[in-house]
Amino acid sequence: MPHIPLPERAPGILALFAFRPETARPLNELAELLLRGPSTLSPGERELIAAYVSSRNQCVFCTSSHSAFARAQLADGARVVAEVTRDPQSASVSPKLKALLRIAGQVQEDGKRVTSDALASARAAGATDREIHDTVLIAAAFCMFNRYVDGLGTVQPTDSETYDALARDIVTNGYDASRAVAALDLAQLS
Amino acid sequence: MPHIPLPERAPGILALFAFRPETARPLNELAELLLRGPSTLSPGERELIAAYVSSRNQCVFCTSSHSAFARAQLADGARVVAEVTRDPQSASVSPKLKALLRIAGQVQEDGKRVTSDALASARAAGATDREIHDTVLIAAAFCMFNRYVDGLGTVQPTDSETYDALARDIVTNGYDASRAVAALDLAQLS
Repeated sequence: MPHIPLPERAPGILALFAFRPETARPLNELAELLLRGPSTLSPGERELIAAYVSSRNQCVFCTSSHSAFARAQLADGARVVAEVTRDPQSASVSPKLKALLRIAGQVQEDGKRVTSDALASARAAGATDREIHDTVLIAAAFCMFNRYVDGLGTVQPTDSETYDALARDIVTNGYDASRAVAALDLAQLS
Repeated sequence: MPHIPLPERAPGILALFAFRPETARPLNELAELLLRGPSTLSPGERELIAAYVSSRNQCVFCTSSHSAFARAQLADGARVVAEVTRDPQSASVSPKLKALLRIAGQVQEDGKRVTSDALASARAAGATDREIHDTVLIAAAFCMFNRYVDGLGTVQPTDSETYDALARDIVTNGYDASRAVAALDLAQLS
């Protein structure tokens, strides 16, 4: 049961975007830039970082949605997502992504936990300054998104269809709150 | 020592804004909306929530800067900020702000920690849905900002002059990364 009155059929953060469109705009711009903007990390790899951090924060909506977004954009996505959310260090991903996931896990605990060893491993595996920056900011941003979604008691479906539908939307249209909220309004009218 | 090459004389998040102006824009828009945009909570009250969450996350730069921003915008600011960062429940702030600070502290731990008791206290003290929403999002956002600033090893000054100067700038000009970064560039040239 949500802690504030939210649109009934809107899951997770989509209900919050509808409640407060002003803050939805920069939040979506940030997600679009970090997860889908120009980068030497693929959208699937970045969604994997988002899913991993969300799973560590045990946020059902964000873990389910970003896992679905990663699955939809990675080769052998279902297996890779399952492996990474269980243990990134034994997952079948590149050494560079493993090293970045380790940094993301440290940031999820506390920014001060990032170790020189983790940074050195990432650099040895070829990570650039920009990739390290973006990994830290993605991990930090999901510590916000997860708390926002959980902290207001949003409805968080557990069926995979909801998240697969969201994945099709994000892969096609990107992160765009106003469009997503308009689509919800239409769905609620139908 | 920063984990990535950052402008030498830029403290805390300002160095990160200079490193990656694209993400600086939505981050500043979010801060401006949440901390200075139209609201029934004053800018000083909202900065107090930001300072309190940052102090719980032990982020020196964010605690020092948002404490300075709160001090500059609250009556008897120095005393109120000191009291709130020590223990909000015994601080000389309104019952509503006390209740909102309690919710912010719960969100800082984990969004799932927000209790119905804390929500009921906030409502009994007159908090609106929008105030509860914004408190949760401010607390969540500072769990991001704190991790971003700490996670990349930014330089975090400990002198009060730096933060008093930042406070004068924010109170006059608001959160505007491009202006702040341009001002830094000028300072580095001088």
